[in-house]
Amino acid sequence: MLLDILNFAGVAVFAASGAMVGVRKDFDMWGIVTVGVLTGVGGGVLRDVLLGINPPTSVEDYGNALTATIASLLVFAFHPAFTKLRKSILVLDAFGMGLFAATGASIAVDVGVSSFAATAVGLMTAIGGGVLRDVISNEIPLLLQPADLYAIPALIGATVVAVGSYHTPVPQWVWLTVGSILATGLRLLGLKFGWRLPTARN
Amino acid sequence: MLLDILNFAGVAVFAASGAMVGVRKDFDMWGIVTVGVLTGVGGGVLRDVLLGINPPTSVEDYGNALTATIASLLVFAFHPAFTKLRKSILVLDAFGMGLFAATGASIAVDVGVSSFAATAVGLMTAIGGGVLRDVISNEIPLLLQPADLYAIPALIGATVVAVGSYHTPVPQWVWLTVGSILATGLRLLGLKFGWRLPTARN
Amino acid sequence: MLLDILNFAGVAVFAASGAMVGVRKDFDMWGIVTVGVLTGVGGGVLRDVLLGINPPTSVEDYGNALTATIASLLVFAFHPAFTKLRKSILVLDAFGMGLFAATGASIAVDVGVSSFAATAVGLMTAIGGGVLRDVISNEIPLLLQPADLYAIPALIGATVVAVGSYHTPVPQWVWLTVGSILATGLRLLGLKFGWRLPTARN
Repeated sequence: MLLDILNFAGVAVFAASGAMVGVRKDFDMWGIVTVGVLTGVGGGVLRDVLLGINPPTSVEDYGNALTATIASLLVFAFHPAFTKLRKSILVLDAFGMGLFAATGASIAVDVGVSSFAATAVGLMTAIGGGVLRDVISNEIPLLLQPADLYAIPALIGATVVAVGSYHTPVPQWVWLTVGSILATGLRLLGLKFGWRLPTARN
Repeated sequence: MLLDILNFAGVAVFAASGAMVGVRKDFDMWGIVTVGVLTGVGGGVLRDVLLGINPPTSVEDYGNALTATIASLLVFAFHPAFTKLRKSILVLDAFGMGLFAATGASIAVDVGVSSFAATAVGLMTAIGGGVLRDVISNEIPLLLQPADLYAIPALIGATVVAVGSYHTPVPQWVWLTVGSILATGLRLLGLKFGWRLPTARN
Repeated sequence: MLLDILNFAGVAVFAASGAMVGVRKDFDMWGIVTVGVLTGVGGGVLRDVLLGINPPTSVEDYGNALTATIASLLVFAFHPAFTKLRKSILVLDAFGMGLFAATGASIAVDVGVSSFAATAVGLMTAIGGGVLRDVISNEIPLLLQPADLYAIPALIGATVVAVGSYHTPVPQWVWLTVGSILATGLRLLGLKFGWRLPTARN
């Protein structure tokens, strides 16, 4: 139940980030909702396609798409307010990212793939929506550009869930919680202290 | 049989729209055929990947790819003529879109997914090829930009097929016909009367 | 065993080509490794998604991703050297391409798809990584632009493996070898003699 609420919160935040790109690019209402929905559900759809879950959960059940649509329409209607909320949204996004990394890995564990695969799938669940948002908006993915750490915290969170679930007797829900908090926390610390990776030509 | 002919017509029209983008971007013959084929079969491949139909029909059978290749080569050879035919092609494209939305939803119903999933898959079958065309050509998808209605008619056509097939005693082929005509008709009316959706910053 | 070594060599070369695009675009270390890994494993993942192999081999086993990560980190550390090695890398890339076209088709034959599907899957295995590299880096795929032949040799190599394996009594490993050498050889000849396809507007 709490997991469902957190999941919808993550979808909504991701969708809002997509819708804001759509507003900035002067898409019409349909375009804004489309980018929003793709950003909100893209990571989970990628996860399910890689795991062979057909149709993907976000295609089979309308909950995620509906949540993403509502979030996108709110951005469409009140986007100046959202622009001012940029900081709060970065925080919410960190929660969505941590949650998606941990649940993505956890669902992969339930399917029974290798620990490496569960880690990779968790990572892709966390970052897939954002990459799809940027590719479809014809921009270089934020993920690839020099910026505050984003994927590394997701990778660490997913690793903790995958390795912990398979190789320790501690129950999976504990790792789900730890991995999610760890990914979110590292992301927030990275934002606060401006942690960055080097580029090749400095 | 009629459905097969309409399907090949839809694939050919979509492929021609892709090949014309390739001509405009000065791709060589291979690039033009590649964009044409991806545009012609992309929606159906996305549909099959989401539904777990492996390999996708357009990969397993050569009919669609061959049709798309021929259409692309015709554009390659006679592209000035196609540029003049822009209006006729918009009309043909409306038929292809309506047909893909309806058949996509119908195939999803046959697989037994939820009505929401059948609607979503129908929509994605109709718009997937065009989005792939624009993403691979490094352009913002036409679908997202303010323009005459395209995806909304596809969504309505797919909804009619999905909901009608699951929740009424009327046979599926009737809904397939109604949904296809409805999507195509709404698209043509939208083109004629210039129906548009609002943007966020007007 | 030899096939494994060749496979890792192909992954490494493809990954290096992706990492070099990342260096040129001033991505940070994470971005460079991400593009490198996606380029190295993208074709194989696409192959497995189309064939319904879940999770894809490169997601389930860490070997390919690890190889691609190391190759990308080497480019990150020593990229000026790699830029000078451009010619050698083109040759290595030709080997990777030929190998991926042939093994992609061969794996599809093992799954039991049609000869057309095996050919198409072989082609997509060979070119998928490069297209993903360019799409995610927000560039028009090299593959679509007027340039020395690349996809045609891959197509011919994949066709030989698919048709030979299904329709002759000659064992599949012979066709795997012939298809791979043929694709690589045609690519190298095309590079040497500057073979090109026509564009539509000359």
